[in-house]
Amino acid sequence: MQKILIAFGGNALLRNGDDSTFGAQLIRAREAFAKISDTILENDVIITHGNGPQVGNILLQNELSGGVTSPMPLHACGSMSQGLIGEILLNAYDDIRIKKGISKEGVVLMTRTVVSPDDPAFRNPSKPIGPYYDRQASERLSREKDWVMREENGKGLRRLVPSPVPVDIVERSAIFSMLNDGFMPICVGGGGIPVVKTPGGFVGVDAVIDKDLASSLIATILEVDRFVILTDVSNIFRDFGKKTEEGLHRISHEKLGELLANGSFPSGSMEPKVMAVLDFVRKTGKKAVIGSLDDAGRVIAEEAGTVVY
Amino acid sequence: MQKILIAFGGNALLRNGDDSTFGAQLIRAREAFAKISDTILENDVIITHGNGPQVGNILLQNELSGGVTSPMPLHACGSMSQGLIGEILLNAYDDIRIKKGISKEGVVLMTRTVVSPDDPAFRNPSKPIGPYYDRQASERLSREKDWVMREENGKGLRRLVPSPVPVDIVERSAIFSMLNDGFMPICVGGGGIPVVKTPGGFVGVDAVIDKDLASSLIATILEVDRFVILTDVSNIFRDFGKKTEEGLHRISHEKLGELLANGSFPSGSMEPKVMAVLDFVRKTGKKAVIGSLDDAGRVIAEEAGTVVY
Repeated sequence: MQKILIAFGGNALLRNGDDSTFGAQLIRAREAFAKISDTILENDVIITHGNGPQVGNILLQNELSGGVTSPMPLHACGSMSQGLIGEILLNAYDDIRIKKGISKEGVVLMTRTVVSPDDPAFRNPSKPIGPYYDRQASERLSREKDWVMREENGKGLRRLVPSPVPVDIVERSAIFSMLNDGFMPICVGGGGIPVVKTPGGFVGVDAVIDKDLASSLIATILEVDRFVILTDVSNIFRDFGKKTEEGLHRISHEKLGELLANGSFPSGSMEPKVMAVLDFVRKTGKKAVIGSLDDAGRVIAEEAGTVVY
Repeated sequence: MQKILIAFGGNALLRNGDDSTFGAQLIRAREAFAKISDTILENDVIITHGNGPQVGNILLQNELSGGVTSPMPLHACGSMSQGLIGEILLNAYDDIRIKKGISKEGVVLMTRTVVSPDDPAFRNPSKPIGPYYDRQASERLSREKDWVMREENGKGLRRLVPSPVPVDIVERSAIFSMLNDGFMPICVGGGGIPVVKTPGGFVGVDAVIDKDLASSLIATILEVDRFVILTDVSNIFRDFGKKTEEGLHRISHEKLGELLANGSFPSGSMEPKVMAVLDFVRKTGKKAVIGSLDDAGRVIAEEAGTVVY
């Protein structure tokens, strides 16, 4: 019996271009839980997940209904996505739980993640989110809402938001209690709702938190034995897409840190995952694994994927 | 130290016609928590809440973006509203908590409520939800989505959904655990996400669960000492709006049951609240109070509102 945190990539529910209906997402979530049911049966498991495609749709719905309803800020769209994905994951897990005779219940905890107002990301918004706009609409939004906009490969302009580093998880005690009480917490959805701490309380901010970095943080806080990232690639690759491309199987955190420093990983996709596992392994001395959701059982057993020690 | 369940009416966050922005809802939620902060400090408190105006806006956004994104089913819109309202209540509570030096943390638990597929409400959808449609759109929706539509006072046609009776709360153990661990659970939002239990698991259904009946159910399950409904009227009134109108102050459940049977309460508004408190008092022998949110402290102390014993 180990404490294992499993971070589901966006592909556990919805891939770009996939059927995005509720029913289709439910089927995919069921497949994801079926692949890790033995792990849940034998261990204390915490589930975290991304929310990219879902929050994108919610944002789009907000924008398209502008003038008819009050559009909610980005962080509130994140909260809605935690609710939506929470229902999908709970129902999907219960289907598998009943089938496999697992008594452990899942529970979805709304989670807020603290970021620093001094994070340099706030001075340099870099994450494109939401729909594409033409130049006129873009200039209006920039003026009215103070949005930073950027042209994207000829398709129009998109809003850019900051992606600050997560520094704390507000609901850490609640997650810890639920785990101790024998539940499987489903939490830190989409990296958590970004908030800054003020003397008066917590204030939601429009930002995007990398879900792997936030998962690494809660994995470290909970002192789990293993941190598992299930995604859509089989391994960490050095020099991905180049002639020197090489899938990594077992690698020390020192060596992986060198590769990261040498710029071996593409910044958009694998880099934050590498940073997330490195941070966990360095702080806890425990192992982390990155691998394919399709091969989840073998990844968790360290027979597939990239093991970082 | 008592166990007290407090059900916030919709007006705790948003009244019809009010400013529905995130910021405005946050301010109202903060005012609501300020009114019950002493109760939270001195007791074990569970919070439940409605979601009418919020889920209405989410539904509208879904409809207006049809064809661009996959519209989510009604129950999933309910999940989104649990997330949205969850963030508002957590942030608002933390503001008050820090101000008043309350150590108890709030936690938002996604909650599913079981209804029976045999509930007669499914054969007689009665709750209007979402936007108004013209006859042509209405006939198309009726055909394509099997929606039941009804003309509403000259404004157009609206979808009708069933309002079945809640029979169980899926997350009952998690809520109980959180309460026992010293947290203030915020749960059963909007009456919970309606699901039916099948041999294979739980399936979301498009229905609306009365939040007071669902609150009564979880209050009974948790065996709380007091069930408090905070709403926008000062008391239960018999013959509301008639010449014989009379505000009730203290009344036995037997007497209140007689008034209910005699049709003394309007079916849309006060009737489900009366049914909710009656059910709780009959099953537990404990007291319930209905009163105004504005006067929350005195309602909880039984100095205002209607006490049912």
